[in-house]
Amino acid sequence: MTESFHLSQIGIVHSPYREKFAIPRQPGLAQVDAVIELLPPFALADAVSGLDQFSHIWIGFIFHAVTAKKNDEREWKPLVRPPRLGGNEKLGVFATRSTHRPNPFGLSVVELLRVEIDNGVRLHIRGADLLDGTPVIDIKPYIPYADAIPQARAGFAQLAPERINVRWQESALIQAQSFSDDLKSIVDEVLSFDPRPAYQDEPERIYGVHIADCNVRFFIDDNGVEVIEISRA
Amino acid sequence: MTESFHLSQIGIVHSPYREKFAIPRQPGLAQVDAVIELLPPFALADAVSGLDQFSHIWIGFIFHAVTAKKNDEREWKPLVRPPRLGGNEKLGVFATRSTHRPNPFGLSVVELLRVEIDNGVRLHIRGADLLDGTPVIDIKPYIPYADAIPQARAGFAQLAPERINVRWQESALIQAQSFSDDLKSIVDEVLSFDPRPAYQDEPERIYGVHIADCNVRFFIDDNGVEVIEISRA
Repeated sequence: MTESFHLSQIGIVHSPYREKFAIPRQPGLAQVDAVIELLPPFALADAVSGLDQFSHIWIGFIFHAVTAKKNDEREWKPLVRPPRLGGNEKLGVFATRSTHRPNPFGLSVVELLRVEIDNGVRLHIRGADLLDGTPVIDIKPYIPYADAIPQARAGFAQLAPERINVRWQESALIQAQSFSDDLKSIVDEVLSFDPRPAYQDEPERIYGVHIADCNVRFFIDDNGVEVIEISRA
Repeated sequence: MTESFHLSQIGIVHSPYREKFAIPRQPGLAQVDAVIELLPPFALADAVSGLDQFSHIWIGFIFHAVTAKKNDEREWKPLVRPPRLGGNEKLGVFATRSTHRPNPFGLSVVELLRVEIDNGVRLHIRGADLLDGTPVIDIKPYIPYADAIPQARAGFAQLAPERINVRWQESALIQAQSFSDDLKSIVDEVLSFDPRPAYQDEPERIYGVHIADCNVRFFIDDNGVEVIEISRA
């Protein structure tokens, strides 16, 4: 076996994504807000001094929901089926952003809205694709002259996924508005990326997803998503 | 203390950078070639299948030259002095790409030149800012619709560092050409980014750096860099 390294959790993600299903498959797609809370001994105002000069930051994190038991050999397969390829074609795990990879290490660039240092150290971010409770191992500033390569060639992942239309049944809309001001826009953002596994196309199927503190029930047909019901989780 | 995670080394970097001094401070600046060799049990051709669809890849790696002894508490300070600010101003460590950070975790995007699977699994890359021997913990494809944000605001690091002129003493040029075909271009690339610590401006000082298998001696004055001597390391 090769060497292994110990990385400490420096923070935790608070996000409306309460389960993997329905999280957009890359950062920056859905305009959903989240918070990174730094944890002691890393929760120092000094450690984020000047970070507000940057409009975007990298979050290095652990895919904790797919992490094997501690010290166990982690399960991974050299070939995976990316959802973008319809779930039929296999690609090498290092040619994908799959969460099932040799190290459970993830990387997302997000918009930095605000740095809060009065109430612990909290980074308010937008566009994260991070599950609530995700352990953060690093924060780095996004440096466009080094990190932005708009002309990069990216094969099967060249184009952003297209959005689909989201419509609401009247009763679901009333429920959403009674729970919180921003719930409808969060649900709109998330569902517009069609969260179904790539190989599923069952117009009669009702899906449920836990977003923010609510259960959302919906179906998907040729005209897009229809939200049926919102209830407290 | 917060939780800690174990990440396995999946590969190792072979690069002409044999010491930290003179490595450009971000990836993509110097057009210097390197190789990532995957290590068992990760060195499988399947694991990189399809990676050649991508022109650029992310390397997640460990700053091994600054790693504390295993299981020791790692030393870090909440405030650091970025070289770009002349070494005078302090910034929060998370607002910089400093190698002296809570977790010794680094991130570089590089150009992928070629994937070699006949002689182990080797990724030929260009533009790395990685020390020879760097442990790699992940390879991910660069996805421009998610990763490229050319309009990002980046405060003190908005603009790429400017290059300075590199000139050669005749004897040094002859030495370089006698060692290898590409040594001169590697040295030109590296030294054009002015490797001096930001606070040093001593025109009479002779610097030495170990690049590829050679020792390079040079000085820097108002007209740029002058290479004095090249010798076998």
